[in-house]
Amino acid sequence: MLDILITGEYVITMTGEGLGIIENGAVGVKGNGIEVVGRAGEIKSKYRAHRVMDAPGQVIMPGLIDAHIHTGINILRGLSQDVDNWMQEGLWPFASCLQEEGMVKGSLVNIIEGVKAGTTTFCDYTSPMQAIVKNHVQVGSRARVTDVINELSPRIRELEVGELYPFDPAVGQEKLENNITLLEEWHERERGRITCTLGPQGPDMLSKELLLEVRELAERYSTSIHMHVAQGDREINQMEKRYNQRSIPFLDELGYLNEKLMAVHLTEATAAETHLLAERGASMILCSGSIAIIDGIVPPLREFLQVSSRAGLGSDQTPGNNCSNMFNEMKLTALLNKCRARDPQIMPAWQVMRLATIEGARAIGLGNEIGSLQPGKKADIIILNLNTPAFCPHIKKPFRNIVPNLVYSARGDEVDTVIIDGQVVMEGRKLLTVDEGKAIREAQEEGEILEDRCQKAGIHTPLVDMMEQDRL
Amino acid sequence: MLDILITGEYVITMTGEGLGIIENGAVGVKGNGIEVVGRAGEIKSKYRAHRVMDAPGQVIMPGLIDAHIHTGINILRGLSQDVDNWMQEGLWPFASCLQEEGMVKGSLVNIIEGVKAGTTTFCDYTSPMQAIVKNHVQVGSRARVTDVINELSPRIRELEVGELYPFDPAVGQEKLENNITLLEEWHERERGRITCTLGPQGPDMLSKELLLEVRELAERYSTSIHMHVAQGDREINQMEKRYNQRSIPFLDELGYLNEKLMAVHLTEATAAETHLLAERGASMILCSGSIAIIDGIVPPLREFLQVSSRAGLGSDQTPGNNCSNMFNEMKLTALLNKCRARDPQIMPAWQVMRLATIEGARAIGLGNEIGSLQPGKKADIIILNLNTPAFCPHIKKPFRNIVPNLVYSARGDEVDTVIIDGQVVMEGRKLLTVDEGKAIREAQEEGEILEDRCQKAGIHTPLVDMMEQDRL
Repeated sequence: MLDILITGEYVITMTGEGLGIIENGAVGVKGNGIEVVGRAGEIKSKYRAHRVMDAPGQVIMPGLIDAHIHTGINILRGLSQDVDNWMQEGLWPFASCLQEEGMVKGSLVNIIEGVKAGTTTFCDYTSPMQAIVKNHVQVGSRARVTDVINELSPRIRELEVGELYPFDPAVGQEKLENNITLLEEWHERERGRITCTLGPQGPDMLSKELLLEVRELAERYSTSIHMHVAQGDREINQMEKRYNQRSIPFLDELGYLNEKLMAVHLTEATAAETHLLAERGASMILCSGSIAIIDGIVPPLREFLQVSSRAGLGSDQTPGNNCSNMFNEMKLTALLNKCRARDPQIMPAWQVMRLATIEGARAIGLGNEIGSLQPGKKADIIILNLNTPAFCPHIKKPFRNIVPNLVYSARGDEVDTVIIDGQVVMEGRKLLTVDEGKAIREAQEEGEILEDRCQKAGIHTPLVDMMEQDRL
Repeated sequence: MLDILITGEYVITMTGEGLGIIENGAVGVKGNGIEVVGRAGEIKSKYRAHRVMDAPGQVIMPGLIDAHIHTGINILRGLSQDVDNWMQEGLWPFASCLQEEGMVKGSLVNIIEGVKAGTTTFCDYTSPMQAIVKNHVQVGSRARVTDVINELSPRIRELEVGELYPFDPAVGQEKLENNITLLEEWHERERGRITCTLGPQGPDMLSKELLLEVRELAERYSTSIHMHVAQGDREINQMEKRYNQRSIPFLDELGYLNEKLMAVHLTEATAAETHLLAERGASMILCSGSIAIIDGIVPPLREFLQVSSRAGLGSDQTPGNNCSNMFNEMKLTALLNKCRARDPQIMPAWQVMRLATIEGARAIGLGNEIGSLQPGKKADIIILNLNTPAFCPHIKKPFRNIVPNLVYSARGDEVDTVIIDGQVVMEGRKLLTVDEGKAIREAQEEGEILEDRCQKAGIHTPLVDMMEQDRL
């Protein structure tokens, strides 16, 4: 007896080397796992189910994986795009105005945004994660979370662009302990739906000693290291000033380049560095929208894929992306990489869809659990209603247009139903686990508190001038 | 007495040099025009209205302008992305399978798609336009339409890539006459909502004599010439083979470079050619999504804007874009141009929004009619509901985040209400002028007829192989 039996016009399983599409297919769910996948007629004749979801004209596919997101700074959505030196001049001026309550309420809305656009797994990288992780518990999302470990003195915010960051070992120890506590308290909770990783912020943001300590902890806890690597000329500049070495060779010497490392961004990685990282078994997490907006750069995905397929996509952050929508990331990944290579054949739809599903799952260390629809995997499933103008017509012969339209035409609001770990989290676009309206109202209230704190603190970024020029 | 009075949290007027935002603003509509724009309190105290639309927490802004779209080939949606030599190897193989009925039914769905994402004006470039224009009449969209004029012999589809196109003057005369008939029958119909332009397909696709004839007709009818210019290396190659000259100097000699010309794409235009075209007063229509997908190229918008601001955005076509959504085009225009320049400050949100509204209006020759909310202009207005996760929180101090989020986070489904020429065409996301479900069903039926015709014709494109490899 199945718990849920879903049938649809297309089941995109993401098994095999391509898409593994079954037309008129079905997926059977039992508990939090997938029991059976196949032709609808066959499965219907063999299985009974407590609940049947018949989805004619619809698509059933694995939930999407947002392999890098900072939900805690969603309260700053739209406050630092279109500027140079994004982190230091766009984002950091707001740091002193952030409060835990606002970060947590903002995070909840960010998670809701993602789930409503088909994201079922979030690699969430924010402090204070011990508070934020409860949002994932509440929503029902799968989360692979980490706290932020750095050793940066609070004085960092007074520096000019380009000055060497001062380290404060006391800060480092406190943050490391937060991350350890997170691991101790949350790793593999909620039937394994919540897992924890270690989060050194970047090779430039903590000492070599602390980096080595983190590496040992990753062994002890058998988990991943989720880390920004070569995330901008800012980082490379710090590394060269401090160690006279670039990020990736430095991390190689430290024994960081292996299958435990989720290397985020690689914005400034050279082709050779990218190849080295891929050869060592580390994964690449690409944040196409974010890096295009905040840096104007397309990172070396193509070079990475020449060596390894363990790459995933992330929406990063909303102060400068400004949304968390994996359909958006898929489309941008295809287009930006075509333009970087000046070749329309680069990153075709099927390959991009693999990054957001099965390859992304492998890249974050959950390849055996999620990312494809096959018996034995967790039941993280989305159902899309494609009975919309933007998907019309559906064509099947001489070839299907459904996957290109999912990558290039979908907006995310086609997602009708979201099942995570066997639980129906959204149905008919209505979230069943949390009150969306209340979450938005409460985050909006926190936004207004933030406004007041910014006013009092006299925040000034280049966008203040833009506002005065009638441009915001 | 106003016909409609709309109030909202933000009125983005697009007047002046920036955004012209009025907080807690109002727009009054009388007949098909805008009567008054200002602070809500003031206008409410001075005017009465037959109908009041109070839109708390919402945005009121000019309808978006899709400055280049081929709605007639929407029936081929998703059938030719990710291939090289898009036109010849991806698109043309389907030409023999197209039927008027399918083109017209598909076009209707494409127009509905655009309107539902906030597009109120379509520069629609397709044959058979005399049939397709009736879709715009029915939907209530503003349309600036043209038929396609070329002189290409039907033998063109048998050529190898790179062979010189054979011209057939009889074809040219027939197509020219179609365009003239369109002008005679439709120009300035429906209270001026429908206007017609002349549509030479490209400098490589008709003879010099016919181009000169078209130029004279544009004078006689006081209308624009809507034309692909430097749309790919394919075109430049044809021009060099036929005339030993590149497209833009050739058109300059023919007297084409002036304020009547809407030059679409400029994919292969050099900086100097782009500057020349801009200096002569011609406008640039940029199709960011389409050209990224089908060519892997970011056209020289930045170079154009160094000389002139008369640029607009277009969604082009769905066989290889694969959607018609101006929010998508705004975001892509910003990101692709930032990456082309490797500078995150290039094409900030406010400037991109101007391209989709006021500058786009000027670029298509309707700058006095549409593109901004101000008394005397036509009432083409959209109302967006921003009470969604992707817009949370709204921040106003120390600067507003609303326009960046409209450009970088909106998907198009935030558009709640669409008013075109004073008529409420959509409300609460429901179209009032056409039956959306029926339009989709009928286009889907035509899609299935197309499938059969393709099967019978034995259509082969590179995507057939991709399908066999489990990649479609």
